[in-house]
Amino acid sequence: MDKRNLTDDLISRIRKFVPGISLDCVVFGYRDGVLKVLLLKYYNVEAWGLPGGFLQSDMEMHQAVNEVLYKRTGLRDVFLTQYHTFSSLNRGWDVNKRSKSAINQVQSIWPEKHKAELEAWFYQRFISTAFLALIQADKASLSNDHISECCEWKPISDLPPLVLDHRLMIEMALEYLKVQINYMPVGKFLLADKFTMSDVQILYETILQKKLDRGNFQRKMLKLGIFKRHEKLMTGASNKAPFLYSINDGAYKKLLEEGIGFI
Amino acid sequence: MDKRNLTDDLISRIRKFVPGISLDCVVFGYRDGVLKVLLLKYYNVEAWGLPGGFLQSDMEMHQAVNEVLYKRTGLRDVFLTQYHTFSSLNRGWDVNKRSKSAINQVQSIWPEKHKAELEAWFYQRFISTAFLALIQADKASLSNDHISECCEWKPISDLPPLVLDHRLMIEMALEYLKVQINYMPVGKFLLADKFTMSDVQILYETILQKKLDRGNFQRKMLKLGIFKRHEKLMTGASNKAPFLYSINDGAYKKLLEEGIGFI
Repeated sequence: MDKRNLTDDLISRIRKFVPGISLDCVVFGYRDGVLKVLLLKYYNVEAWGLPGGFLQSDMEMHQAVNEVLYKRTGLRDVFLTQYHTFSSLNRGWDVNKRSKSAINQVQSIWPEKHKAELEAWFYQRFISTAFLALIQADKASLSNDHISECCEWKPISDLPPLVLDHRLMIEMALEYLKVQINYMPVGKFLLADKFTMSDVQILYETILQKKLDRGNFQRKMLKLGIFKRHEKLMTGASNKAPFLYSINDGAYKKLLEEGIGFI
Repeated sequence: MDKRNLTDDLISRIRKFVPGISLDCVVFGYRDGVLKVLLLKYYNVEAWGLPGGFLQSDMEMHQAVNEVLYKRTGLRDVFLTQYHTFSSLNRGWDVNKRSKSAINQVQSIWPEKHKAELEAWFYQRFISTAFLALIQADKASLSNDHISECCEWKPISDLPPLVLDHRLMIEMALEYLKVQINYMPVGKFLLADKFTMSDVQILYETILQKKLDRGNFQRKMLKLGIFKRHEKLMTGASNKAPFLYSINDGAYKKLLEEGIGFI
């Protein structure tokens, strides 16, 4: 699709969107002890942003966010939850130089005949409901959208420059995850299908940003009764090879219903 | 103010509101082992609703909600947090008979000349950001608004018929509170300034809807180091009179920064 068609398409979609409402998604992935977040780079500027979009007036929010996620990662049915709505008066595209540069690049592809309508759309006050997704990074195949030049995983400990209030969105998603980690086995969504208890512990330590006692952690985890034990992980030799585990979905569901904390 | 003036006032305010955005507030209060929520009764119908309002286009959401709370309770600076945004396509005034009756009563006071504008306003798709407030029930002096005939505390275990999705809003606020109780001393906001450890335990049991072991609970609570011990509560005789406590704000703030769970 050329730029002209893209803009025509955008115009026809904008007319179906709920005015003033946007959606953003903090997608967490994890590999080798590093927690990462999915970001898109705007064309020709050093400015990145979260995957997101708008809300069609006949669509539910979670449907719209699922579509965004599917387009960026090729995945459906991932763990997805709403965590906060951002509505500050200071969250517009004119909030700082970086956001201005990013939107200027977007504007540069707008044809003259739709300029006024597109400007009115992008410069209205947006109230953005933010979602948090957990995905197995290895399973995603990433695609950028038409206003970005790439879509990449970035470690949360070393984020590139972000537009709007997207850094705050990521920080608050991480805070939310730290609380929720007590209520859901985040390993189920972030780790591979089979993992060692040590993998789980490193993941928890990465999210909570603190060391946990190995014996205590493993005892508490196993006591939950939600893990299925499989073969040992053989990486060469040693009779100390750790067992591999997976989540027993039935037991996990039962535990959630009982509402027991995880750590 | 007569009804005519009220409507003129509403019209001039509607023109300053962000279209499609509403705010609702689940105000929890607590007394004698009963957790209660603040509700308004619509005129002439058995239908109740949460305190709420709309968002002025030059106002921050938390300001707008603080105003709603102040008008209904006379209190400022209470504990207030956003917990969820409700956006379902099925949350309009036509969702059920009760909501229809309630809005019909509201409509009956609209003058002919503004009817079309008011109808267009109230029947648009609203996306409502919901807040949770915790207040010391004894300190509130309640006032109804111009579309309701009274404002009262109702026990969460015995709610009257509610409009729209307000029952769901209360249920989700309670779920949120159950999780947050591990991260904040809700007693600080819901109990009187001085309380016994037994008061705290009954409050936690009421929110969590389960019995807690007395010895364990008090040991864990006191270990947090956030309580100041005062005189004993003398209710007649006995050397077994319990101590009164209050929250040590400095120690509480420090604990929050360290991010330690409460139970």
